[in-house]
Amino acid sequence: MLEFQKQKQNSEHCERIVYIASDATGITAEKFATSLLAQFKLDYSIIRIPFIDHINKAHQAVERINTHARIHPNKIILFTTLVNAEINAILHTCPAFIVDLFQAFIQPLEQELGLQSTHVMNSLHHIGNIEAYEKRMEAINFALMHDDGQSHSNLELADIILIGVSRSGKTPTSLYLAMQYGLKAANYPLIPEDFERQAFPKILTKHMDKLFGLTIDAKRLANIRHERAPNTHYASFNNCMHEIYEAEKMMRANNITYLSSTHKSIEEIATTILQCFFKN
Amino acid sequence: MLEFQKQKQNSEHCERIVYIASDATGITAEKFATSLLAQFKLDYSIIRIPFIDHINKAHQAVERINTHARIHPNKIILFTTLVNAEINAILHTCPAFIVDLFQAFIQPLEQELGLQSTHVMNSLHHIGNIEAYEKRMEAINFALMHDDGQSHSNLELADIILIGVSRSGKTPTSLYLAMQYGLKAANYPLIPEDFERQAFPKILTKHMDKLFGLTIDAKRLANIRHERAPNTHYASFNNCMHEIYEAEKMMRANNITYLSSTHKSIEEIATTILQCFFKN
Repeated sequence: MLEFQKQKQNSEHCERIVYIASDATGITAEKFATSLLAQFKLDYSIIRIPFIDHINKAHQAVERINTHARIHPNKIILFTTLVNAEINAILHTCPAFIVDLFQAFIQPLEQELGLQSTHVMNSLHHIGNIEAYEKRMEAINFALMHDDGQSHSNLELADIILIGVSRSGKTPTSLYLAMQYGLKAANYPLIPEDFERQAFPKILTKHMDKLFGLTIDAKRLANIRHERAPNTHYASFNNCMHEIYEAEKMMRANNITYLSSTHKSIEEIATTILQCFFKN
Repeated sequence: MLEFQKQKQNSEHCERIVYIASDATGITAEKFATSLLAQFKLDYSIIRIPFIDHINKAHQAVERINTHARIHPNKIILFTTLVNAEINAILHTCPAFIVDLFQAFIQPLEQELGLQSTHVMNSLHHIGNIEAYEKRMEAINFALMHDDGQSHSNLELADIILIGVSRSGKTPTSLYLAMQYGLKAANYPLIPEDFERQAFPKILTKHMDKLFGLTIDAKRLANIRHERAPNTHYASFNNCMHEIYEAEKMMRANNITYLSSTHKSIEEIATTILQCFFKN
């Protein structure tokens, strides 16, 4: 058994077992359930049953949950997000505490909108809108090609260009922006040569309106760099402090908005970048 | 104004304006709202107001929505996910149709669990669990280093190794598995030399239990390859068909589970891979 499978299995001895039953991937439902449950001091383990898009699969899911319910001392919590009424009804026969994410809102929305819901399975994460999906895939390729200033070609196609010292979080942020929003995000490192010249890489001067800066605490940067290149000048605290000081000075002098990635996740960084570009 | 900002602004002339108000990123709330609204034939535009974690920001958000409400002919729809009761109450003064994603479920969950919700803002997407977050970042680095068979080093640390012909979707899937699940996903292309030898790259033979295959329709593969390398043998339909035939044959002969990425998004592919490894 692979390592990550073992970890998952070990988490079975939890106070509560939480199932997510979805007719699509169930990714959003799982995230939503997780943020609701984060409101409780609860030891739980989540199991997601995706792609329940047929009555047979609904019965299989019920059987699986029933079996689990018989051996687990506490009532199972079941989050469902199933648009088909028949499939949903089957899942509702489970001996579980059911949180129906779909039913709770569809009826009030129908009333407000004066529209009937289609009840058509139409996953958010299905390839559905092929153009939007291909835009995301293209953006991922773009981010990979333009990672770390590797390529200047087609830079004019970039939506956003992240800048910052090496290891300040530019690569994962670029990939996240591409993957989730289909934004073409390039990234360029600010390096000692730039600080000596007191100027951004020349290629960037044509694209100043697309620049967004990332910075980071020197101590954390030194830690991250030490992992990669232990006991080097590059990773030393003093050098990190110097690089960050120079990078921030240059960004301020050029009116580039920047934020610190030290205590922010890529989701938070990306959200802040979008907010900034849309002047929210 | 940048291209992607213009696109967003153009979408303002919609039947309905939908706001998402969150004390964190609001990413999950936006996705959840999008999948609910996908149930209606509705022309709408979403605006997300993240990080409403203070009363002042709540008042600013209300002002912004009020201003918008005055100029838009139809009632605004407002999805909230705010754990702080005071902040939530302020947002509830908006002249909008309010869908309170949080309140709908917290009270029933409190009752079922016999626990009070903490009402502490604690975003799913906050860096919070630093270990889990660093695992994700490490996994992204791993996926980048082990993309397209670039590096054999530390391959034993891989959780999953994707294989398939060039451009079958391995890279975005590896990055997605890393970014969302912190899984170390390497990927190796199956190339003509492998088909001639009728054997996987030697380095993979030690890791057969970690292999998962991607395949794709020949026509779609030819299209994708033509974008990159027009009018080459590599991109020709016949060559694509041949490579896919050989790759699938090798995967079947070695009992490697594989799926077709032709009509599947990376989210669906990743979900299926996890299902397979967990024998769901």
